[in-house]
Amino acid sequence: MPKANKKYLFNKVFIIGLGLIGSSIALSIKKNHIAKETIGFAKTPKTRVIAKKKKIVDSVVNSITTRLSEADLIIICTPLSTYNKIFKSISPFIAKNTIVTDVGSAKTQSISDFKKYEGKDFDFIPAHPVAGTEQSGPNSGFSELFVNRWCIITPIKNNKKKNINLVKKLWIMAGSNVEVMSPQRHDQVMAITSHLPHLIAYNIVSTAADIETVTKSDVIKYSASGFRDFTRIASSDPTMWRDVLLSNKESLLEVISRFSEDLSMLQKAIRWNDGDTLFKIFSKTRKIRNKIIKAGQDINAPDFGRSKKTK
Amino acid sequence: MPKANKKYLFNKVFIIGLGLIGSSIALSIKKNHIAKETIGFAKTPKTRVIAKKKKIVDSVVNSITTRLSEADLIIICTPLSTYNKIFKSISPFIAKNTIVTDVGSAKTQSISDFKKYEGKDFDFIPAHPVAGTEQSGPNSGFSELFVNRWCIITPIKNNKKKNINLVKKLWIMAGSNVEVMSPQRHDQVMAITSHLPHLIAYNIVSTAADIETVTKSDVIKYSASGFRDFTRIASSDPTMWRDVLLSNKESLLEVISRFSEDLSMLQKAIRWNDGDTLFKIFSKTRKIRNKIIKAGQDINAPDFGRSKKTK
Repeated sequence: MPKANKKYLFNKVFIIGLGLIGSSIALSIKKNHIAKETIGFAKTPKTRVIAKKKKIVDSVVNSITTRLSEADLIIICTPLSTYNKIFKSISPFIAKNTIVTDVGSAKTQSISDFKKYEGKDFDFIPAHPVAGTEQSGPNSGFSELFVNRWCIITPIKNNKKKNINLVKKLWIMAGSNVEVMSPQRHDQVMAITSHLPHLIAYNIVSTAADIETVTKSDVIKYSASGFRDFTRIASSDPTMWRDVLLSNKESLLEVISRFSEDLSMLQKAIRWNDGDTLFKIFSKTRKIRNKIIKAGQDINAPDFGRSKKTK
Repeated sequence: MPKANKKYLFNKVFIIGLGLIGSSIALSIKKNHIAKETIGFAKTPKTRVIAKKKKIVDSVVNSITTRLSEADLIIICTPLSTYNKIFKSISPFIAKNTIVTDVGSAKTQSISDFKKYEGKDFDFIPAHPVAGTEQSGPNSGFSELFVNRWCIITPIKNNKKKNINLVKKLWIMAGSNVEVMSPQRHDQVMAITSHLPHLIAYNIVSTAADIETVTKSDVIKYSASGFRDFTRIASSDPTMWRDVLLSNKESLLEVISRFSEDLSMLQKAIRWNDGDTLFKIFSKTRKIRNKIIKAGQDINAPDFGRSKKTK
């Protein structure tokens, strides 16, 4: 590993994937002087052209192994289904003692993908910045995406404490609050706070699109009456979410069952005019909203004019 | 019916219920010079005190029948379960040819409640302004609530065309776009665009609150990852929504079944690693979001500084 310049946390960061998260990390690293240099790899020529044009990274490379050995930090920012292939492609080229981290929204599955490569001379420290928008692609990245958001680090056996601390510092410098927990606990928490909500949002929007008693134009016209709130997260990147949901199968199937059980109960209450049951549940949920507002988690990440320019 | 001053659409408007919708209508009538005078009735002393203090209406009355006979327009702005009692209380006191309208979110049930009073000398013209926030009570009202929103009028047999037009004009002057449809069609459209989304939001928040593998504080901490989007509408008024959902039972039970069917299909796709099915559905829902953005229905009603003052 080339020595990091004292001014910076890292010397060269190699970012694999320049979508919403990858490009936002790159911009944040540059803005917050986290590394001396950033190198970015993107699979599609279109993304590479945008990354160059918008100067998202210092250099854009066409191959995942080009200049990979120069990096002291590698960040995987691609869909979870690509991890296996990526570990296989990069592991022969990584310099000794390099840190590899990721941004995946599900952890146990990707850690198990990594198992085959354990013992190689790099330290894989799984991380998950709990941040994002419904946008995707390099044009949607912005350096402030992680400000005031949580980043969860889920260390695995053999991770060096020094390296965990470096990854922690990276996220703190990007503006995040850092929490450390086990991969299993991470996946349980995300199943209910993120994965189930996305699945339900996709599902309700799909149900509405298929209803034949009501036209699509009516659904759109009257969407402000409730439906609209679901369409935002149901417009999130399909590839990413397919992979996330399939990578957290066990915890997700458990919370889907709980959700369906609860819905059946409400359905029955409606059928039998049981207003008391409805009122009790609808009152309980109101309190939770108030707690979220108090915790300052009720607003979107600040825009900082990203709709106009990239940084 | 006292003759309306030519300058105004109505002479005296009597508003029953001064919650979010009732107080917003009152403020809009005043601001847009829709009626010469507004009289408001509220059941609870607390609401009456706020209505007086904030000058939401010109006069606040303690009884639903006080000065009711002076009105040429009566607007019912209370939960749907109160309609029966309200029709019974007011029908002996309403002046001849008075228009009665409402703002209820479900129509067929309230029209059937009205059936007993049909033939009396007033004209009941059901209406539904498709507008609202998750707030409730007289402090949350603001005159611009209806601007750029839809108001659906669902006329019934024997409604006078002239009166339907007056109610239409009221809503146009309040800033709304008006649509006329049958009560049955209204209830079908609202079942999917509004009632199911509210039920699902209440349900997911309730499921999250009951999960024992994840603490409530974790749910709140990581709510920005998707869950948060549901908590806003799940904090809507419990009494109102209990009544709305019970008043649109038939259409609602139908869409719940469709939703559950679709969810079971996604659940199965996750269990059997069927990524293609997930990807196909997640791509479809993205397009609907884009159409909503194009229709200008993706943003909340403008705030106009209502968090600071009432009007």
